[in-house]
Amino acid sequence: MSYSLYQVRALDAADPLASFRPLFRLPEGVIYLDGNSLGPTPASVHARLADTIDREWGQGLIRSWNGADWMGAPARIGAKIAPLIGAAAHEVTVADSTSVNLFKLLSAGLAMRPDRRVILTETGNFPTDLYMAGGLAVLAPDVTVRAVARERLLEHLDGDVAVLMLTHVHYKTGARHDMPALTAAAHAQGALALWDLSHSTGAIRIDLAGANADLAVGCGYKFLNGGPGAPAFLYVAERLQAQARSPLTGWMGHAAPFAFSDDYAAAPGVTRFLCGTPPVLGLAALEEGVNIAASAPMDAIEAKSAALWAVFDTQMRTRCAGLGFARLGPENPAERGSHISFTHPEGYRISEALRDRGVIGDFRDPDVLRFGLTPLYLGYEDVWRGAEIIREIMDGEHWRRYAPPVPGAAT
Amino acid sequence: MSYSLYQVRALDAADPLASFRPLFRLPEGVIYLDGNSLGPTPASVHARLADTIDREWGQGLIRSWNGADWMGAPARIGAKIAPLIGAAAHEVTVADSTSVNLFKLLSAGLAMRPDRRVILTETGNFPTDLYMAGGLAVLAPDVTVRAVARERLLEHLDGDVAVLMLTHVHYKTGARHDMPALTAAAHAQGALALWDLSHSTGAIRIDLAGANADLAVGCGYKFLNGGPGAPAFLYVAERLQAQARSPLTGWMGHAAPFAFSDDYAAAPGVTRFLCGTPPVLGLAALEEGVNIAASAPMDAIEAKSAALWAVFDTQMRTRCAGLGFARLGPENPAERGSHISFTHPEGYRISEALRDRGVIGDFRDPDVLRFGLTPLYLGYEDVWRGAEIIREIMDGEHWRRYAPPVPGAAT
Repeated sequence: MSYSLYQVRALDAADPLASFRPLFRLPEGVIYLDGNSLGPTPASVHARLADTIDREWGQGLIRSWNGADWMGAPARIGAKIAPLIGAAAHEVTVADSTSVNLFKLLSAGLAMRPDRRVILTETGNFPTDLYMAGGLAVLAPDVTVRAVARERLLEHLDGDVAVLMLTHVHYKTGARHDMPALTAAAHAQGALALWDLSHSTGAIRIDLAGANADLAVGCGYKFLNGGPGAPAFLYVAERLQAQARSPLTGWMGHAAPFAFSDDYAAAPGVTRFLCGTPPVLGLAALEEGVNIAASAPMDAIEAKSAALWAVFDTQMRTRCAGLGFARLGPENPAERGSHISFTHPEGYRISEALRDRGVIGDFRDPDVLRFGLTPLYLGYEDVWRGAEIIREIMDGEHWRRYAPPVPGAAT
Repeated sequence: MSYSLYQVRALDAADPLASFRPLFRLPEGVIYLDGNSLGPTPASVHARLADTIDREWGQGLIRSWNGADWMGAPARIGAKIAPLIGAAAHEVTVADSTSVNLFKLLSAGLAMRPDRRVILTETGNFPTDLYMAGGLAVLAPDVTVRAVARERLLEHLDGDVAVLMLTHVHYKTGARHDMPALTAAAHAQGALALWDLSHSTGAIRIDLAGANADLAVGCGYKFLNGGPGAPAFLYVAERLQAQARSPLTGWMGHAAPFAFSDDYAAAPGVTRFLCGTPPVLGLAALEEGVNIAASAPMDAIEAKSAALWAVFDTQMRTRCAGLGFARLGPENPAERGSHISFTHPEGYRISEALRDRGVIGDFRDPDVLRFGLTPLYLGYEDVWRGAEIIREIMDGEHWRRYAPPVPGAAT
């Protein structure tokens, strides 16, 4: 049975996260169901960047590397992300992109298992994860990327595997891997487990320590609301930090960068995984997003993620029954993230029609409509209205007014 | 003979670049001689970032990847940098940090010379250049970094060298390599030439095409005034683009990133050297700085660079004679960049004392005082006054009030 407007308004009235909504700026008339692709703007970002530009950069100039602690930003923001992923403060830092951080940690993982040369991952993983592993395999001797269907991962997890590299929550289906079980399986075979947390950080509870995870990376611009192309984070378990080595030995990962020595000496801890000069403007924006996420109670986030999903899924099953939508991924909250996806043969045109009605989700080739259900700034009525508008689009076949997709174009 | 205040004011009155000064925000009472480390804030950056945050990100949200052409920013800004370095628009893109871009191009260069495994560079090169080459040598089979004193480069440029990697203008001494001659020497031995343009781009004329250079990288936050930790640029000569391959095969370097294929296919041209999601906020700030540099006549920049240097050097030789300063690097403008450096046994404490007097230069271990003489926002009177204040500091031995340096600390 579908939810009524009365019911979802009652859910909103009782929402313990309602106070977080005003911390974001969202356009009038938009139902934003794409925060899993790019989170919206924290209200504080404008003033933070104005201050970073005018006072820190403009007035402080070069002195702000110390005076405004630009140098400390990667570790400081990493420490704030740490509780969101079940890590200790000194196990996380912020640098580069998710792609570049994957390369660093894959390489570090392979070097820690020198008698093994296989990276095991799943087909259909987020493309950049597969591509970065492939690039490393071209460069480093004898490395092989073994990509298999997710249901066959365990049978391919053997004594040749150096690193099991998986994305915690699948970018398309929303399906969540069992991190503790797969990490334990990797360890049982002598392999390391590297988790890409891009689609789970800030959306669901993550416990890297509890899972005994080895390495992880994640994205700053999705549920952390750090801004377009925000710097990414990386995690190295403390027990591995002394031996883990970055292949991208830039000066910011040096033990004494301002000694300007010709010889590289890795900084202690996770700092050695820094590379070039920290991107100060991007870090400042990211910190504003992280501050919000870090201040939200994870119990409430997890509960509301699951509840928003249930409302949207229920509405799609009832109000949009028989209209050609097929949900991807599991229903059990423990087995998924906080986004929900449906296939539809006209997915692209439906997505375009929805955007014109102010419902912003996104489309993933070939036929997937993906909706991010983000607890910090979406209400129950928002997702309820989103489903209503999908029904209206379908009823009127509004999507027929839109051109079909151009293969491979940005969507 | 030293310059008089009257003389330097006359030079300022006749300065064809005087109109560029108001395009930057500099603090009252500061003589900023460190633009070669971090350029100051373009006046337009505040409004540009406000618009990027409020309208593009805030209102446009995910739609701005196309709607605000965030996707096109790396190529668009690269095309604006191209004329500053003597490249064609499609030979330059903007991505990652200088360090990461060095890694990509070094790896690409080695792969284009598969029968050679040596990277030749100079001792005392900027540390991150040496470190990144060293990191690649750990990862890739049989690669060796051969670092030799700059005067012995030619004798070590032999048939084993795959890539000659040099920094065009030395970060410490300001000495400039003869790019056409060294590139020709590399080519004569069958090697590729990779130039780090961090300390020359925007400061002096660079002609990569004229030098027949193969590969180059450069920094966004020095003379391009792109902001702290701004994205960096990279150049691949058109003739090499079809064969040059990045080892960091991220999704933004894919021919069709939004096809989400499991298999990597390199994008055409220099775009394949993109990796992760473009850092939009950093790119926006960088574009404001690049817009200014690209609009300034290079003849005037080069002439004023040389003239500012001559004024400062003359004042140091006359007004600060006998005070223990020894200039590093050559006098001939064709053999140097636009910064000037002096050794002094008390360099660190002098640098600190100068900062307290509003003269911001920087200090490089162990004893180097470095002053950036940047034509777009410095006047002749500024550098003249800078030298006067150095004399005052020395006369009063003001520097004795300052603590000596902590080895390896950020300066």
